[in-house]
Amino acid sequence: MKALVLFSGGLDSSTALAMAIDKYGNDNVVALSVSYGQKHIKEIEASKKIASYYNVEHIFIDLAKIFEYSDCSLLSKNERKIPLGDYKDQLEETKGNTLSTYVPFRNGLFLSTAASIALSKNCDIIYYGAHQDDSANDAYPDCSVEFTNAINEAIYLGSGKKVKVVGPFVGLHKSDIVKIGTDLKVPYELTWSCYEGDDLACGKCGTCIDRKKAFIANGLIDPIKYKE
Amino acid sequence: MKALVLFSGGLDSSTALAMAIDKYGNDNVVALSVSYGQKHIKEIEASKKIASYYNVEHIFIDLAKIFEYSDCSLLSKNERKIPLGDYKDQLEETKGNTLSTYVPFRNGLFLSTAASIALSKNCDIIYYGAHQDDSANDAYPDCSVEFTNAINEAIYLGSGKKVKVVGPFVGLHKSDIVKIGTDLKVPYELTWSCYEGDDLACGKCGTCIDRKKAFIANGLIDPIKYKE
Repeated sequence: MKALVLFSGGLDSSTALAMAIDKYGNDNVVALSVSYGQKHIKEIEASKKIASYYNVEHIFIDLAKIFEYSDCSLLSKNERKIPLGDYKDQLEETKGNTLSTYVPFRNGLFLSTAASIALSKNCDIIYYGAHQDDSANDAYPDCSVEFTNAINEAIYLGSGKKVKVVGPFVGLHKSDIVKIGTDLKVPYELTWSCYEGDDLACGKCGTCIDRKKAFIANGLIDPIKYKE
Repeated sequence: MKALVLFSGGLDSSTALAMAIDKYGNDNVVALSVSYGQKHIKEIEASKKIASYYNVEHIFIDLAKIFEYSDCSLLSKNERKIPLGDYKDQLEETKGNTLSTYVPFRNGLFLSTAASIALSKNCDIIYYGAHQDDSANDAYPDCSVEFTNAINEAIYLGSGKKVKVVGPFVGLHKSDIVKIGTDLKVPYELTWSCYEGDDLACGKCGTCIDRKKAFIANGLIDPIKYKE
């Protein structure tokens, strides 16, 4: 068995990478990082360090052109500001619309990219780090259990029943992921989660807030430094 | 309503484009052509002529890098020869394996790309020209009815229930498509189907054979010229 891990360099997908390596060995794991025109390159730098730490094959694909027409606030070409505060408050403000940080069908596109490469690289499984907090209140519709099941079915059928998607955290919270990853000794000090691209994580965007809470819930100290 | 048409410049997707324009008007249709490193640029040239004929917005995306690791015979980087003869004979030779002309999860990847762009362009519908002959005997698993249903569900859910995939030819044969397109006056003389990229269509690859049969079944003459 061989696994391809959709790998951003963040906390969730780094933990998924560690799980895959723990199960299949680093020679049977390929990490795939996709650039989509995000505002910073901190994630990419983090992904390189972690792939090197684990000594796994690491593939990069740049899909920024596909998002050229999107007004998503995470994209470097857009001046729209990344909203602060936790997702729940943000959703109340958008009044039922998707968040400005929703990159159109990003996870579907990334998983399809992963499926094409998995077939070429003879991988049987795609690991994918989506979790329950991202899909709560429909913050990100391409993180939900229903979506993951549907894309799994599409990839299984469209690949000639050769590739399956595994979302080990789909029913879990970020705090559960930190627990699993801490047991697996994931080098969290190398990961990057913040939506901004400054030297230190901002500590105020949705993903920073979630990350900090997840460590606190486990009685742990997040090993990265925050601006505040 | 606004439609995005996945559009290769071939017979099937040109007919899908004509259907969408007939229904929504050319101002409400966006054509999307994806390059994947195919052996020739005849398709791309054809797609430009047809989009210009219909006066629709036309977007190009190059995804060749994703197929860098594939050994598919359609890719320009591979020397593997494109097989001749019809699909049924070819499948008997491969003994249950997918055809060498199967581009790994191509349609899933193209539809996901279409979904991302459809959301950015405020399109509600993606038109997709897959038909029954392509999926017969599992020649191309990413053309089957089951796959189309699954990816439709994934795109609908992952887009926040904003985008649907329509496969108007999924249950039909290529000859039915030629009938529909002839009624809609599709400029078939501008389309390109052949897997080879010579000045004239080869007349011997799987797709040339299928195309010729489809015109004959309608008592029509294919307006393009063949080498033989």
